[in-house]
Amino acid sequence: MKGINFTDVVEYLGTVAFAISGIRMASRKHFDYFGAFVIGFITAIGGGTVRDLLIQKEVFWLTSPSYFLCTLIGMFMVIVFKRIVIKLDYTFFIFDAAGLGLFTLTGIVVTLDAGYSMFMAIIMGTITGSVGGIIRDVLINELPLVFREDIYATASIAGGLIFACMHFFNAPYILTQIVTIISIILIRVLVVRYSWHFPSFKDNNSKF
Amino acid sequence: MKGINFTDVVEYLGTVAFAISGIRMASRKHFDYFGAFVIGFITAIGGGTVRDLLIQKEVFWLTSPSYFLCTLIGMFMVIVFKRIVIKLDYTFFIFDAAGLGLFTLTGIVVTLDAGYSMFMAIIMGTITGSVGGIIRDVLINELPLVFREDIYATASIAGGLIFACMHFFNAPYILTQIVTIISIILIRVLVVRYSWHFPSFKDNNSKF
Amino acid sequence: MKGINFTDVVEYLGTVAFAISGIRMASRKHFDYFGAFVIGFITAIGGGTVRDLLIQKEVFWLTSPSYFLCTLIGMFMVIVFKRIVIKLDYTFFIFDAAGLGLFTLTGIVVTLDAGYSMFMAIIMGTITGSVGGIIRDVLINELPLVFREDIYATASIAGGLIFACMHFFNAPYILTQIVTIISIILIRVLVVRYSWHFPSFKDNNSKF
Repeated sequence: MKGINFTDVVEYLGTVAFAISGIRMASRKHFDYFGAFVIGFITAIGGGTVRDLLIQKEVFWLTSPSYFLCTLIGMFMVIVFKRIVIKLDYTFFIFDAAGLGLFTLTGIVVTLDAGYSMFMAIIMGTITGSVGGIIRDVLINELPLVFREDIYATASIAGGLIFACMHFFNAPYILTQIVTIISIILIRVLVVRYSWHFPSFKDNNSKF
Repeated sequence: MKGINFTDVVEYLGTVAFAISGIRMASRKHFDYFGAFVIGFITAIGGGTVRDLLIQKEVFWLTSPSYFLCTLIGMFMVIVFKRIVIKLDYTFFIFDAAGLGLFTLTGIVVTLDAGYSMFMAIIMGTITGSVGGIIRDVLINELPLVFREDIYATASIAGGLIFACMHFFNAPYILTQIVTIISIILIRVLVVRYSWHFPSFKDNNSKF
Repeated sequence: MKGINFTDVVEYLGTVAFAISGIRMASRKHFDYFGAFVIGFITAIGGGTVRDLLIQKEVFWLTSPSYFLCTLIGMFMVIVFKRIVIKLDYTFFIFDAAGLGLFTLTGIVVTLDAGYSMFMAIIMGTITGSVGGIIRDVLINELPLVFREDIYATASIAGGLIFACMHFFNAPYILTQIVTIISIILIRVLVVRYSWHFPSFKDNNSKF
């Protein structure tokens, strides 16, 4: 018998948080409930889907309805507990960061298992964490947030580099995994608290 | 010798109708003829393509030029018989509904054949019917219609549920297929006649 | 030992030129450096990626970091040698045309090798050359240039038809390849010099 697994709990919380971010953005665009559900689902599973297509693995959500269920829970919370969801903004931010951490880790592990290099694994980890949000933004007809705002995908890359270092020095696997996830969460928290961001092309746009 | 098949005729009519919907939307955006052709083609084959990629089957249009031909016919009709196309709006609406019905059925059957669950088959049927229109709307830089307007993808889901029920009760296969397609067409006709729609997030957009 | 290959040089120059086109467009939209890098990379590899997914081949950039390197070089040039990049506009246009030519040829050859028809190979060549730019435009939230402006994808198709003719008449393979690439470059140069374009739907947009 398979008991309740810690990573499963993190993954489901992350999926619900990702789905809620999609549902809320869709609601701002007057999408109907069906549309909001679809956007929430795609936000949650988009990154892993693109990763699985790229490395020619069976797409992960085809064999389990749990990702639909997590999206339904997110939908339910947004419709019924609207005020609580808004009040719990910071809680969902932490779930989202945990989701980013776990999705990134899953992407790295799956890609290494498929026989690709550590370099490619870090990229696939980043894709797993960020591409769902990019597809969400394309579907709601907005410039993808991840390309303009605070460090998001980069938290995945940093987590990936930490994973690679610990892997290189033969750190215990379970420790490597935990440190990777926690680093990504920490980076997200620090980035948002101190408004870190990358330089952008704001100045030279008139010249190009 | 393979004679003219009834489902083939429905599929080609549906493909032409889907292509025409794409070409007309592209024409409103001042696309050139080449761009309009591409949008028409993607509208017609986008859903089935995404389905085949997700379930790791060979993409259906790679081995047959008939989908290009249907798009060319649609292109020809829009350019040459512009007024007739506009006059026949309701005829094309029926073709489009028939296309949706048949595309949905094809998606369900192909997915069941690949060994997936009925749940996943209904989802793949819906993807087959709707994703072409979503890609069309993304490419012409509009919010996807399917997320905001009257029940479209949901007609696919309803048809899928009817298919599942009849399958469960061991109804004759040919009957199951016909009833599925006709239900989807009927739902589309009723939805448009009575302006049915889902609740949307229109009211709470200021709060989110 | 593998020496420096002529087609490799063309491919890398083309990749840098495609990446720079993506980076410059991203910079106009105030993307940060990370976002611009990603857009540049996707512009360069998007077409080949979609081709490989469609014909179920391993995605070409998963096993080589050289496409990342080319994008980094493009990034470096845009940031550091901004003025030179603008001054060398025509040089980059030629690189871009050469990239289009070589990407198209690669797409054709890879698709024929996978056992598909010449018709499908020409389409995959066109997809290899143009889809990166389409994804770039979708991500920066613009109507895809290729659907509205001067002949671009059509240069790929024309090159593909020339390849097919020479192949049909058993022309030497190396000659076929060189003529295909040079024709595509020439078409691009002529198209831009003489402002050739397709008819569009500009007139009848009010009626549809």
